[in-house]
Amino acid sequence: MKVTIVGPGKVGMVLAYSLVLRGVAREVVLVGSNREKAEGEALDLTHAQAFQQIPVKVRAGEIEDAAGSEVVAVCASVPMPAGLLTRNALAQGNADLMKELLPRIAKVAPNCKLVMVTNPVDVLTWQALQLTGFPRERVMGTGTLVDSIRFRELLSEMLAIHPDDLRAYILGEHGEHQFPAMSVAQSGGERIDDTPERRALCERAKHFGMEVFRKKGNTCYAIGQSAAYIIEAILLDEKRTVPLSVLVDGYLGVTDVCLSLPVVVGKKGVERFLHPDLNAVEAEQFREAARAVRKVIDGLE
Amino acid sequence: MKVTIVGPGKVGMVLAYSLVLRGVAREVVLVGSNREKAEGEALDLTHAQAFQQIPVKVRAGEIEDAAGSEVVAVCASVPMPAGLLTRNALAQGNADLMKELLPRIAKVAPNCKLVMVTNPVDVLTWQALQLTGFPRERVMGTGTLVDSIRFRELLSEMLAIHPDDLRAYILGEHGEHQFPAMSVAQSGGERIDDTPERRALCERAKHFGMEVFRKKGNTCYAIGQSAAYIIEAILLDEKRTVPLSVLVDGYLGVTDVCLSLPVVVGKKGVERFLHPDLNAVEAEQFREAARAVRKVIDGLE
Amino acid sequence: MKVTIVGPGKVGMVLAYSLVLRGVAREVVLVGSNREKAEGEALDLTHAQAFQQIPVKVRAGEIEDAAGSEVVAVCASVPMPAGLLTRNALAQGNADLMKELLPRIAKVAPNCKLVMVTNPVDVLTWQALQLTGFPRERVMGTGTLVDSIRFRELLSEMLAIHPDDLRAYILGEHGEHQFPAMSVAQSGGERIDDTPERRALCERAKHFGMEVFRKKGNTCYAIGQSAAYIIEAILLDEKRTVPLSVLVDGYLGVTDVCLSLPVVVGKKGVERFLHPDLNAVEAEQFREAARAVRKVIDGLE
Amino acid sequence: MKVTIVGPGKVGMVLAYSLVLRGVAREVVLVGSNREKAEGEALDLTHAQAFQQIPVKVRAGEIEDAAGSEVVAVCASVPMPAGLLTRNALAQGNADLMKELLPRIAKVAPNCKLVMVTNPVDVLTWQALQLTGFPRERVMGTGTLVDSIRFRELLSEMLAIHPDDLRAYILGEHGEHQFPAMSVAQSGGERIDDTPERRALCERAKHFGMEVFRKKGNTCYAIGQSAAYIIEAILLDEKRTVPLSVLVDGYLGVTDVCLSLPVVVGKKGVERFLHPDLNAVEAEQFREAARAVRKVIDGLE
Ligand SMILES: NC(=O)c1ccc[n+]([C@@H]2O[C@H](COP(=O)([O-])OP(=O)(O)OC[C@H]3O[C@@H](n4cnc5c(N)ncnc54)[C@H](O)[C@@H]3O)[C@@H](O)[C@H]2O)c1
Ligand SMILES: NC(=O)c1ccc[n+]([C@@H]2O[C@H](COP(=O)([O-])OP(=O)(O)OC[C@H]3O[C@@H](n4cnc5c(N)ncnc54)[C@H](O)[C@@H]3O)[C@@H](O)[C@H]2O)c1
Ligand SMILES: NC(=O)c1ccc[n+]([C@@H]2O[C@H](COP(=O)([O-])OP(=O)(O)OC[C@H]3O[C@@H](n4cnc5c(N)ncnc54)[C@H](O)[C@@H]3O)[C@@H](O)[C@H]2O)c1
Ligand SMILES: NC(=O)c1ccc[n+]([C@@H]2O[C@H](COP(=O)([O-])OP(=O)(O)OC[C@H]3O[C@@H](n4cnc5c(N)ncnc54)[C@H](O)[C@@H]3O)[C@@H](O)[C@H]2O)c1
Repeated sequence: MKVTIVGPGKVGMVLAYSLVLRGVAREVVLVGSNREKAEGEALDLTHAQAFQQIPVKVRAGEIEDAAGSEVVAVCASVPMPAGLLTRNALAQGNADLMKELLPRIAKVAPNCKLVMVTNPVDVLTWQALQLTGFPRERVMGTGTLVDSIRFRELLSEMLAIHPDDLRAYILGEHGEHQFPAMSVAQSGGERIDDTPERRALCERAKHFGMEVFRKKGNTCYAIGQSAAYIIEAILLDEKRTVPLSVLVDGYLGVTDVCLSLPVVVGKKGVERFLHPDLNAVEAEQFREAARAVRKVIDGLE
Repeated sequence: MKVTIVGPGKVGMVLAYSLVLRGVAREVVLVGSNREKAEGEALDLTHAQAFQQIPVKVRAGEIEDAAGSEVVAVCASVPMPAGLLTRNALAQGNADLMKELLPRIAKVAPNCKLVMVTNPVDVLTWQALQLTGFPRERVMGTGTLVDSIRFRELLSEMLAIHPDDLRAYILGEHGEHQFPAMSVAQSGGERIDDTPERRALCERAKHFGMEVFRKKGNTCYAIGQSAAYIIEAILLDEKRTVPLSVLVDGYLGVTDVCLSLPVVVGKKGVERFLHPDLNAVEAEQFREAARAVRKVIDGLE
Repeated sequence: MKVTIVGPGKVGMVLAYSLVLRGVAREVVLVGSNREKAEGEALDLTHAQAFQQIPVKVRAGEIEDAAGSEVVAVCASVPMPAGLLTRNALAQGNADLMKELLPRIAKVAPNCKLVMVTNPVDVLTWQALQLTGFPRERVMGTGTLVDSIRFRELLSEMLAIHPDDLRAYILGEHGEHQFPAMSVAQSGGERIDDTPERRALCERAKHFGMEVFRKKGNTCYAIGQSAAYIIEAILLDEKRTVPLSVLVDGYLGVTDVCLSLPVVVGKKGVERFLHPDLNAVEAEQFREAARAVRKVIDGLE
Repeated sequence: MKVTIVGPGKVGMVLAYSLVLRGVAREVVLVGSNREKAEGEALDLTHAQAFQQIPVKVRAGEIEDAAGSEVVAVCASVPMPAGLLTRNALAQGNADLMKELLPRIAKVAPNCKLVMVTNPVDVLTWQALQLTGFPRERVMGTGTLVDSIRFRELLSEMLAIHPDDLRAYILGEHGEHQFPAMSVAQSGGERIDDTPERRALCERAKHFGMEVFRKKGNTCYAIGQSAAYIIEAILLDEKRTVPLSVLVDGYLGVTDVCLSLPVVVGKKGVERFLHPDLNAVEAEQFREAARAVRKVIDGLE
């Protein structure tokens, strides 16, 4: 099973390394703007995979080498403008980059599932749908999966329950307009009540991406794991539930924008869109997120 | 980390083999009624573990060799009387067996966590508390974990969602008086509605144990996995939520009986007892299960 | 990837369970002489796999359901005649059984790799070649892989080195005429010298199968792991070196008999036959093993 | 089990991430020269581990937080002087850095096993022995493990055999004076003959580190895996054979220098030093490597 990673930067390489360690993807192609660097990365990973039980072929290539990929993950990005520190600052630059990359991907790998990581991820997932003409089942952004895991980790420290058993979802925008769907949050069949302390964790989780970014200049491990989790659910046809950025199609009155909702991921991509029964406040937060993302989309040239 | 398995029969050996493959327990002691057979099993497992990355010491022993165990799993049993086919038929025989075994276990391994598998598991978990004097945190029966996984597997086939993401719990008795807590069942934040088709799956799941038993003369893989799951959650301090048979202490008005409830399992054993907000019908089913198990307990000599 | 196990007895079921836990085979078919029992086993495994990350379909079937299998493992057997305790005692009974089973397997799964486990394994691997007409690359017996791991485990206890790093091979017959190829035994580039103590371990390893059999009435875990190891090396195209029973084609002057030699296993089956440079004594032991196996073959009706 | 990584740069962080994914180390401390950056890394890893089954605590700290560590891995380094591209160019700078770091490590974690990664690794492993006063069993450098895996990977592509089954060792210096111990190279009991083609692979492997460095500006995945492999062998007491840089104590006449030899690694560190029976040419290459490393040591101020 073949996976192509477009944009082998900090995030793309953590994703590649994670895939190599597990051996689910048996062929990984790295497509970057600097061919020699991508070749160095491919060599280094080739040596690392030799320690594993399952052999994985890793090589550098051009977009055309994505042909035959089950999944193409897009992590390519213009650099974050110094000091700006908001994902939307990347919108125009990356929208332009996608115009260059995505039609070529769609041409050589017309049946692939597309996993968008580049920011602002909701905006670019929407754009990817336009540029590729792919059905919504095959275009997904990592969205609030990474925010959800950060929130669960904080909750886990507070409640002493494994993050995977804390079924709490951050939904909406991967950005300022995200919110915890506390009205449906559960663990072991028990409600996770909506207390001020937990709200505070959620606020902290929302800003964790930027906090990590400020401290180390990027974020790569949690997002790399997020992308790897989605990709392996596709390759192994696992039918896992995850919150992902997908085209919203009427849920809570929202249309024609990409936002994070819980979905089921399997070999066909997004095999099912779930519709949690949010309360009125949450529903409004979702609509607010839709307006915010829409505004960025509308602002693109 | 040391685990002792008392009763290396069909179930006990699947448990032992599962532990050996994963290498979390680094020492496994098999205590059976036939020492030579246990030695044969230990040798066979010793050769199997040599294929694994992590070395595990396996040996046969007496109950006294349980000293120092983190966990003691009890799978010892009198034989199922031919044709009887109800777990309660084993009650008196196994209650007598436990009177022989459990005080000795409590003596040599006074700080262990006790995982009861032998049937009728709710009755014997209750009895284990009496015979060992252990706090309720350290005595748990596999209970409806195995029923829950069977239900989730059936649901998974119907809904095309991974069983682990179908957060539906079978609670109550591991036997006739079990029930699905549908009012709190969720997947990906979405309610799993309580339809007649799903009820039918639940009925089927309830009788799966006996169906498998009739077909092959025992059940061992699903229950072996259940026990292994609990034991690894203890050894690795995972804080996993699982439905287990534990001493009920006032929940829904029930006391002094063991029934399955969702709990959190970590290195101290049951670290937290969860209290799902069941609806009135389910609450009554829980109380009915309590009366049924109590009746068997009261019938013991 | 589909695997069919013909003969879901003690060995076949440990193999099936091992495959299910790892999730490399995604579909497992159990073909036994008792359909209802096979269905019980399949159900039990289906419930066990629901605990794993990777979903695996398990079902009972007839030989015809082996169609499309990458690998067919043959563990079917007549019962060991009470008290006999030599693998060759099964030769005629199992040769007859194979006449019934193997042509049907070859018909429905003409491109599968055949992994023979049933005893006497060298004799039946040879017979499988005749009955199926498969090329020697696609017919292999577990042979002395299990003996080698037992020897390495004993050596490991003596030398305090991981069994996988003790590159010592037991070759020849899976039976009395096996021998350690001490002249080429190495660990970490250092010779493993041929001392009387090590010879004693080798003698013990040779009789371990029978020792375990006497103690517990069968052997299943080490052999189940051996078969699983080979099958996963095929499914994952791992190119692993293992000693397996294969058609010997002139090595040391031996022809037209199956004996264990080190080979390389990958997706095509046996992709390469290795030829260790044995010393004169070992070479003679190999020829002696050939004569012994040949004699059993010639004695078949 | 606690591991401290001193120097969470490119290499240190791949090591940290690898440990976090496997969950063998349950506590990981990152000690860098920039505390805030280390905190960002720790947070990012904390979010990544929340995806895994086994919880791992990751935090930033000072050297004093290494107290209680089973293993301390040293990856701290002065920067590679631009354009220099030889490991020995780092010798004086890193020797000075070690004078600052190692006595403090030895003081707070006097019983740890020390795994040296920083270059020139043979020189610094020798220096670490002096600075800590630790016995040679507890001080090891990654040495030619990474070179050996690169050579095996190339051989694997040529021979179509899994790298783990290609028991060929690169020994001597992790640098120009390394050599393949072809006279004892084996796979599956068969000699790996010393042909010009294989020699060429070995030359390529020797320069792979520098080739990757030139292409991508660092090497991190293969070396991160190497360090993780050693550390897990210690934590799990695996008794694995690996070529590591250790104090040579008379082998082939060499003393008082660190070079790579095959050794056995377990919970006590280097539990055994192996002595392959090298041929005369190889023995001389080993002595030559000793002289080269000695010269760098003698040149330190
Ligand atoms: N969705 C999330 O939760 C999340 C989290 C972290 C980072 N991100 C985003 O991921 C992106 C990558 O982040 P990073 O830290 O890896 O950045 P990076 O600068 O390290 O990597 C960017 C990569 O894009 C490549 N690239 C640029 N132009 C290209 C082209 N024309 N063709 C192919 N490749 C090209 C570069 O070669 C480089 O490898 C950013 O947009 C970042 O904001 C998203
Ligand atoms: N809780 C569940 O969901 C569940 C599921 C399946 C089976 N079970 C129960 O597990 C038990 C074991 O089932 P099995 O199929 O393995 O039975 P089995 O007959 O194969 O094994 C029973 C084992 O108990 C041992 N034993 C008997 N007396 C002993 C003594 N005094 N000391 C030590 N060991 C002794 C025997 O040696 C034997 O190994 C049964 O009670 C069965 O009903 C429970
Ligand atoms: N090669 C080795 O190293 C090794 C090691 C252990 C056992 N074995 C051999 O493996 C074989 C199986 O051993 P076991 O302990 O599992 O025995 P078992 O008696 O438990 O199982 C035999 C199985 O064969 C099945 N079978 C019989 N006739 C059949 C038919 N016509 N069609 C389909 N299935 C049929 C039975 O249903 C049963 O499931 C034996 O021959 C044994 O000697 C080999
Ligand atoms: N042995 C091998 O096979 C091998 C392979 C690759 C790299 N290396 C070596 O590993 C080292 C690290 O390489 P890298 O690419 O990660 O470099 P890097 O520059 O990315 O990282 C160096 C790290 O050292 C830290 N550091 C510096 N001074 C420190 C101090 N006083 N206290 C604590 N930490 C301090 C820095 O904070 C930084 O995190 C280099 O010496 C490199 O040559 C060795």
